[in-house]
Amino acid sequence: MLPQTPSLLSRIRIVLCRPSHPGNIGAAARAMKTMGLAQLCLVSPKKFPHEDAEAMASGAFDVLGSAQVCDTLEEALAGCVLAIGTSTRQRDLQTALLTPHEAACQALSEAQAGKVAFVFGNETFGLSKEELARCQALMTIPANPEYSSLNLGAAVQVMAYELRRTAQAETFAQPELDAADLAEVERFYAHLEETLIRIGFLNPASPKRLMPKLRRLFSRTRLQREEINILRGMLSAMDSKNNGKH
Amino acid sequence: MLPQTPSLLSRIRIVLCRPSHPGNIGAAARAMKTMGLAQLCLVSPKKFPHEDAEAMASGAFDVLGSAQVCDTLEEALAGCVLAIGTSTRQRDLQTALLTPHEAACQALSEAQAGKVAFVFGNETFGLSKEELARCQALMTIPANPEYSSLNLGAAVQVMAYELRRTAQAETFAQPELDAADLAEVERFYAHLEETLIRIGFLNPASPKRLMPKLRRLFSRTRLQREEINILRGMLSAMDSKNNGKH
Repeated sequence: MLPQTPSLLSRIRIVLCRPSHPGNIGAAARAMKTMGLAQLCLVSPKKFPHEDAEAMASGAFDVLGSAQVCDTLEEALAGCVLAIGTSTRQRDLQTALLTPHEAACQALSEAQAGKVAFVFGNETFGLSKEELARCQALMTIPANPEYSSLNLGAAVQVMAYELRRTAQAETFAQPELDAADLAEVERFYAHLEETLIRIGFLNPASPKRLMPKLRRLFSRTRLQREEINILRGMLSAMDSKNNGKH
Repeated sequence: MLPQTPSLLSRIRIVLCRPSHPGNIGAAARAMKTMGLAQLCLVSPKKFPHEDAEAMASGAFDVLGSAQVCDTLEEALAGCVLAIGTSTRQRDLQTALLTPHEAACQALSEAQAGKVAFVFGNETFGLSKEELARCQALMTIPANPEYSSLNLGAAVQVMAYELRRTAQAETFAQPELDAADLAEVERFYAHLEETLIRIGFLNPASPKRLMPKLRRLFSRTRLQREEINILRGMLSAMDSKNNGKH
């Protein structure tokens, strides 16, 4: 194993959104620990803590015991520079779906700069549109087109395996750029939306798909810290000019 | 997906030896179906059929329902040209351990000639020495050295994923040689052992590790059909000469 492997894997966070079955939370904790991952975050779990979670975690009590429970995905992504969502369906997504290996390469490269989250949806419904919109990249596990329904714990196991395998096999160049924290990116989106409403470009009564489309655009480019400053500077200038007009 | 993928995957057999928990059998069936595998074989399962297996199989009823139950691993390997055992421990093995990707490459290459089995051991004890001796290659899933205990269903999921991923990404040259069926190889071992006893080289009262060592040697070379014929011809010649002497 390359010396960087454990430290990079320690920066990977697994986020489970609204899991229904506590057994799957335990299975995910065990899957994570077998591959050297430790940060588990649960967004509004239906039942947790729960004895089924403990039973399925087997010897991964530490990962389960230190799991963070959050109300929102935004909270779960605090301090991350990249969130990769998982999807089993192509659906209406216009974003390219990464393979697990591509996702692992991107995550481990970015993990040199900060924390990276893999976001898994509810067992039955997957990730909601709102949750998908919080992710900068999307990943899918290749599966039998006639039956692609991986168990949640099994999906976490495959992704964790792919992360460990990739971390052992490859070295990752330091990313050249200084990626913005996702909380900063969210503040930019909020600022952008306010400004667009104020200048009359976005009608809050009929917003259509404007904000999701803008999110998709900026997610593709992966905003850097300096770029956020420039964009928000532009918005502030626009705001003050606009305020001056009225 | 390359046109060969489904047909090669259909020649992969998953063999679970003495599984204790029926839930794991169901999870393995589901894991297999998500990756397009269909041949499940159970050697002396503790409880099967069982409602836990059905619950965990989810939509993979067909894989579970067509699972073959055998008394011995030898029976489970009928018709296979290669058996790859799985191990989580380095133990006393003198055989090199393949990575899942290396094992997938070898399996898919040989699958062009015949059926290939992946053999998983009991949840607590793994594969026995006797079971390991029936395998021509061994594979291990890379794991956290401090906690390498993958759940059985999760281990099947990882290997099935690696098989599908590899089948999609690579093309496999037709193997040049005509590998012997494992049943033929077993008949050769039986013949060899009888002959060695008859010529006084192997003392059945104190066999030591002679047969396992010979098995390891021939497993490494992967015996071809023609070679088996030559070797058994030699043994027969030795037998008749020896019979003539007495």
